[in-house]
Amino acid sequence: MIEGLAVLGAAMPDLSVFQYNAVDNIFSMTVATMGAAALFLFMSRSQVDAEYRPALMVSGLVVSIACYHYFMIRHSWNDAYTLAEGGAGYIGTGAAFNDFYRYADWILTVPLLMVELVAVLRLPAAKATSLLTRLVIAAAAMIALGYPGEVIADPSRWTERVIWGGLSSIPFFYILYVLWGELTKSLDSQPLAARKLIEICRLVLLITWAVYPIAYALGGTPEALTAKAGGAVGAGGVVGLQIGYAIADMTAKAGFGVLIYFIARAKSSGSGEAAVAAA
Amino acid sequence: MIEGLAVLGAAMPDLSVFQYNAVDNIFSMTVATMGAAALFLFMSRSQVDAEYRPALMVSGLVVSIACYHYFMIRHSWNDAYTLAEGGAGYIGTGAAFNDFYRYADWILTVPLLMVELVAVLRLPAAKATSLLTRLVIAAAAMIALGYPGEVIADPSRWTERVIWGGLSSIPFFYILYVLWGELTKSLDSQPLAARKLIEICRLVLLITWAVYPIAYALGGTPEALTAKAGGAVGAGGVVGLQIGYAIADMTAKAGFGVLIYFIARAKSSGSGEAAVAAA
Repeated sequence: MIEGLAVLGAAMPDLSVFQYNAVDNIFSMTVATMGAAALFLFMSRSQVDAEYRPALMVSGLVVSIACYHYFMIRHSWNDAYTLAEGGAGYIGTGAAFNDFYRYADWILTVPLLMVELVAVLRLPAAKATSLLTRLVIAAAAMIALGYPGEVIADPSRWTERVIWGGLSSIPFFYILYVLWGELTKSLDSQPLAARKLIEICRLVLLITWAVYPIAYALGGTPEALTAKAGGAVGAGGVVGLQIGYAIADMTAKAGFGVLIYFIARAKSSGSGEAAVAAA
Repeated sequence: MIEGLAVLGAAMPDLSVFQYNAVDNIFSMTVATMGAAALFLFMSRSQVDAEYRPALMVSGLVVSIACYHYFMIRHSWNDAYTLAEGGAGYIGTGAAFNDFYRYADWILTVPLLMVELVAVLRLPAAKATSLLTRLVIAAAAMIALGYPGEVIADPSRWTERVIWGGLSSIPFFYILYVLWGELTKSLDSQPLAARKLIEICRLVLLITWAVYPIAYALGGTPEALTAKAGGAVGAGGVVGLQIGYAIADMTAKAGFGVLIYFIARAKSSGSGEAAVAAA
């Protein structure tokens, strides 16, 4: 596995100036988006009823952690590349681009994403505890089982990668199944104003989460692994993967956090449409 | 487009020490202005009625995001230049000055500027939603259509640049038309103290927004593109453009945010002229 990682690190494909900057810029934009979302979520706690403030607090933590990691991911990207002689493009410096930042981010933020969702639904305490325990364990298992496969770069070990991916998919689908079910069940007990938002929430969850296994699968086809092992990783693939993950992370964390805020606001007594109607 | 970008990156004109520092200093001043405006807007929320606090919050986010981007723009400026041998002036290092920071900033902040304005007007909920949807879509279209033209540096593709600029102008004028109309229509329903401020707001909007298409047009005349393609970009043009954008951004974001604060305060029950009159 360690050798696999070394090969992966060295195999940074040559990029055009445009390709290098596209990834660099989307990382910077992700830092800005996550940072702004953190400010918004922390400061919006005063806009919702006291019982929804923990949900906003946790949402703010998720995007703060992501802001830090994207700042570091961008640094790692800058370190992995240098402008080629003459400025015609970017070539690898030999330093590895650190993919683990993203896993470190997921290890910390995915369980917190479960917490913020359960917190805003305001389920009965016993039910919330049991649900959260199951979701957090599943999230940890999903990430822990995905990582050994992600770092396999030897094409002859492709089936091993597929097995880790398959194992990781079990908790992945379990989480989506449980969350979809809980969100649907909760609809009846939620105020009217919150229902539409929870339906959107369910959809955002499904669409953004779908990006991760697709990216994992595309990055690990036998062809992709052979290309990586030969040091000939397709530049387009690397650029597409990084931009795809960044957009998915912005939607699944910052976008999701803003949705949590609107749900909390719709469910708060002293604010939102209820207050406007009363005025 | 990719080759065009590479040429654009390399074509940093030689600057005098004064010219380099003028741009560097205005960037630093913009960081300070945006940061101070963010502190002011966030902390002033307690000075206005609860229903106007989201408007100040969003105004604060706009200048926070701009603060981050100007910090990064300044870094990119520093990276793009180095003091020439003997210290007589500044010459390009070969690294591109990253124009995309400004577009990333606009992608995030222009929709939020629409939100802060609609939020402070306190239109009926259904009307606000329809208005915001149209404005945010138009803002996204405006920026997305402008960018492909902005990065064209090949003089033979000048007409293409004009076409992108023209397409981008359609949503641009639509936004200004809608905002001008809405601000004018809202005058009757606003308290007396807020009317004068909304009239100023309308004017600031028109004047600051006019800077952007003018800068776009001046930077893309056939002469300017020919100079760029030959690596002979006019130093004065680059310096003027950067200083112009920085001043326009300070006015359109920090200045506009402070106006939003005064409107919110004039419309708040427990503050402003109403409170003075009552005292």
